[in-house]
Amino acid sequence: MTRNEGERKPAEVDAGTPTEQHAPAKGWLRIAGLGPGHESLLTAEVQQTLDTASDVVGYIPYVARVPERPGLCRHPSDNRVERERAAQALAMAAAGKRVVVVSSGDPGVFAMAAAVFEIVAEQPRYASIDIAVLPGITAMLAAAARLGAPLGHDFCAINLSDNLKPFALIEKRLRLAAQADFAMAFYNPRSRSRPAGFARVLEILREECEPTRLIMFARAISTADESITSMALSEATPAMADMRTLVLLGSSTTRRAGPWIYTPREA
Amino acid sequence: MTRNEGERKPAEVDAGTPTEQHAPAKGWLRIAGLGPGHESLLTAEVQQTLDTASDVVGYIPYVARVPERPGLCRHPSDNRVERERAAQALAMAAAGKRVVVVSSGDPGVFAMAAAVFEIVAEQPRYASIDIAVLPGITAMLAAAARLGAPLGHDFCAINLSDNLKPFALIEKRLRLAAQADFAMAFYNPRSRSRPAGFARVLEILREECEPTRLIMFARAISTADESITSMALSEATPAMADMRTLVLLGSSTTRRAGPWIYTPREA
Repeated sequence: MTRNEGERKPAEVDAGTPTEQHAPAKGWLRIAGLGPGHESLLTAEVQQTLDTASDVVGYIPYVARVPERPGLCRHPSDNRVERERAAQALAMAAAGKRVVVVSSGDPGVFAMAAAVFEIVAEQPRYASIDIAVLPGITAMLAAAARLGAPLGHDFCAINLSDNLKPFALIEKRLRLAAQADFAMAFYNPRSRSRPAGFARVLEILREECEPTRLIMFARAISTADESITSMALSEATPAMADMRTLVLLGSSTTRRAGPWIYTPREA
Repeated sequence: MTRNEGERKPAEVDAGTPTEQHAPAKGWLRIAGLGPGHESLLTAEVQQTLDTASDVVGYIPYVARVPERPGLCRHPSDNRVERERAAQALAMAAAGKRVVVVSSGDPGVFAMAAAVFEIVAEQPRYASIDIAVLPGITAMLAAAARLGAPLGHDFCAINLSDNLKPFALIEKRLRLAAQADFAMAFYNPRSRSRPAGFARVLEILREECEPTRLIMFARAISTADESITSMALSEATPAMADMRTLVLLGSSTTRRAGPWIYTPREA
């Protein structure tokens, strides 16, 4: 498959106005990333798309970030209903609505884009919908920027939630990533339903890495609740993370420079 | 170390106007990501910072993306002089300039942020400079968005340039990442000075992965030169990548849904 999409500029969106009388409105679906929290971290593309939407769909706190305005219908839904939310958004787009599914961060990183394409795969009639994914600043980039450049060399991103995969697979990936000496970004480190998982993650990392390895906890970056902590891996405790925390682990070369933490470009 | 920076909103920049006569201008350094190419993929934070800068420093084609205006001095420099560029930017900020170092994509991912902190580590007098890193849309997020959601589950990012690390380390990381079943994003896959490296990368991946594994070549995303190709790993050839190409390799679960490619959230 080859697609050359040089003709379509990212910010172009069809406002959906029928040019012929009685022509049905042509719906579309955009899966957009709102960034980590602060509105200045949205791209212009996402902002412009929100301004032309008829419907916004997403998890309650993310939909709340989109201001109300006449002509915009907001559809907040609870956590853990990603499939239902994706199906609702596709059905509205198929019916002619201009729908934006909003995710925090980037929609393609542990967020709504995969859920939407799971439904498209199951229901081929949706493959003809005008869909686009609009990237955003994912949490690990925002957290890394606040700390310096801890992801300045090869790294990996692992979702620590075991809602959708066995913990044994998480453990395998942690050990192999440590052996590869990747810096690591951990999403969804801890929740009320999985209090023990992150404690086990720290145990595994301590088995694989030296005690002085740098670990960083970045909570609610770019919001009023923002806090950042860093320390040696040996000093980290499970309570340092919650579901609003992005955890970064340095590679063996990650180090401090004054108040900053960075991973040198040279191995 | 704990920092709570909730007070500082991301978009706040000091325009550098002295409030007292004869007070020296307070310089600052921002290390900013311009995104993959199209101006609609900049964040508002980066745009606002560029609007208040006195000096812009970076690789020639990235500095060229910042429009000329009165009061802005542009300092383009050649490739492979990252250390010299970082030192120049720090010296100007220490002298009271409002300096933005521009990178394509995100400055913390195989870009200028690590180079700046390398110099800060060597020259501690620079640790007191007002420095901030402003995140951007890195190439793998822009490429993944165009394709669907190939990074929808755990993934890693590897710089294939062996300018700063031995190829043996690249090979080790490729094999461990394949064994961990990460999706993978490859930066800097090929250049004129390293024509054989990417051919060897494809050989290694074919040893570790099944022949039908999906591989994606995303070139110059969001520019007029954009092109996207995807195929089975067995069909990929080294000539499909150049230095403007971001290469994505799916995990074992990555699949197609109509024109889209995604990695399911469930392992």
